[in-house]
Amino acid sequence: MKEILNHKSIRKYKDKKISKEILNEILQAGVRGSNTGNMQAYSIIVIDNPEIKEKLAPLHFNQPMIKNSAVTLTFCADYNRFTKWCIQRNANPGYDNFMSFLCSAIDATIVAQNVCIAAEKHGLGICYLGTDLYNTDKVIDVLKLPKGVIPITTVTIGYPNEKPELTERLPLEAVIHYNEYNDYSAEQINKLYKEKEELQINKDFVKENNKENLAQVFTDIRYTKENNVTFSKLLLNTLKKQGFMNN
Amino acid sequence: MKEILNHKSIRKYKDKKISKEILNEILQAGVRGSNTGNMQAYSIIVIDNPEIKEKLAPLHFNQPMIKNSAVTLTFCADYNRFTKWCIQRNANPGYDNFMSFLCSAIDATIVAQNVCIAAEKHGLGICYLGTDLYNTDKVIDVLKLPKGVIPITTVTIGYPNEKPELTERLPLEAVIHYNEYNDYSAEQINKLYKEKEELQINKDFVKENNKENLAQVFTDIRYTKENNVTFSKLLLNTLKKQGFMNN
Repeated sequence: MKEILNHKSIRKYKDKKISKEILNEILQAGVRGSNTGNMQAYSIIVIDNPEIKEKLAPLHFNQPMIKNSAVTLTFCADYNRFTKWCIQRNANPGYDNFMSFLCSAIDATIVAQNVCIAAEKHGLGICYLGTDLYNTDKVIDVLKLPKGVIPITTVTIGYPNEKPELTERLPLEAVIHYNEYNDYSAEQINKLYKEKEELQINKDFVKENNKENLAQVFTDIRYTKENNVTFSKLLLNTLKKQGFMNN
Repeated sequence: MKEILNHKSIRKYKDKKISKEILNEILQAGVRGSNTGNMQAYSIIVIDNPEIKEKLAPLHFNQPMIKNSAVTLTFCADYNRFTKWCIQRNANPGYDNFMSFLCSAIDATIVAQNVCIAAEKHGLGICYLGTDLYNTDKVIDVLKLPKGVIPITTVTIGYPNEKPELTERLPLEAVIHYNEYNDYSAEQINKLYKEKEELQINKDFVKENNKENLAQVFTDIRYTKENNVTFSKLLLNTLKKQGFMNN
């Protein structure tokens, strides 16, 4: 519980390997997570080969964690294995569609989060990289993912070599609704974002980026409409190419 | 760790409420999970009102856990709040696209899994319901979700009133690949699925369903191509209606 409540992304790792035994236990924790119909429509690519890491790094915008981590795990939605099994059993698989993709993406994420919590229980530090979704097509090439397989998220793991502060969150009331959604008034939005906007680290962030306020750092620099639209198109193309859009 | 490795879905609950303090701690654990850019593009709908549960139950195919659970949580992808904040700050939001949807769906799932693990640490039992994705449009009506919000997964929680056996998983090697994907030969598929297929519970399942083998129970009864295609279309329509397909 303490680990969950004190979770911080760790981006600097010691030059220390993870034992096979610990890695195995962490992966076992992953697959114990709930999943749709117990189909286990996911795969985990365990990456520790420096050459593969070298190829992956630019696809994750050269975030240093790929190379510095003891191990990098890429969690994939995977209906390839299940479909092969069905065909071998004279059963007619129907998992080449968007619903199957989204279910398996969710299941792969549950596995990933279990892995992260188990890793932290072993004193390891983790960092999620959401960048797979921007470069699915290229990650697919590097990791040689066949049709029916899409990378969803990557987690770097290693022994922590930094002690970052806990990142702020909105007050809990901001994300909780009771029994039905209570939409936000302008006044509520101001109230809920006040603390976040007034944090010195966020004020500095606005200044560094020459913006008027924190929201503009997100919309104009970090997560722009233009990039989101470009990456959405790419991603939908990849879903098609990997055989998940036969609806 | 023990809880993660021994996770079982709990479908029968005692008639006992969860204290506000415990519920609060569980939800706090949820929001401590990693999320894209710390945008917290998710919401949790906490449902304990019997009338709302009554309306939700058929949308989850009348699985009894909705009504019998102490509380039902629906985890949503939510760019409504963040977008409202951007607009109020004279920033131009670009989160009405597929990339933003998928990122927030993944983030909502990480929150959900943290909540599940925290709940189990408090001796509670949980069960995921993947059925939101089949009936997103109707769940949206019942929970009054505005544009920019999509239900991703629902978790029922309560004090366990059953002690089910651990569900089988494929051998770990079935879902793990080292450094790159090693596609499966027919022989490997046979080997990896052997134990699952030979379990008495699965043999009985085949017999009850009058099928030749376990794979056919999945393809012909539990997760048919026809249903998946129908639900895929519905889901993509809902994504459009909720403003997530402006790519």
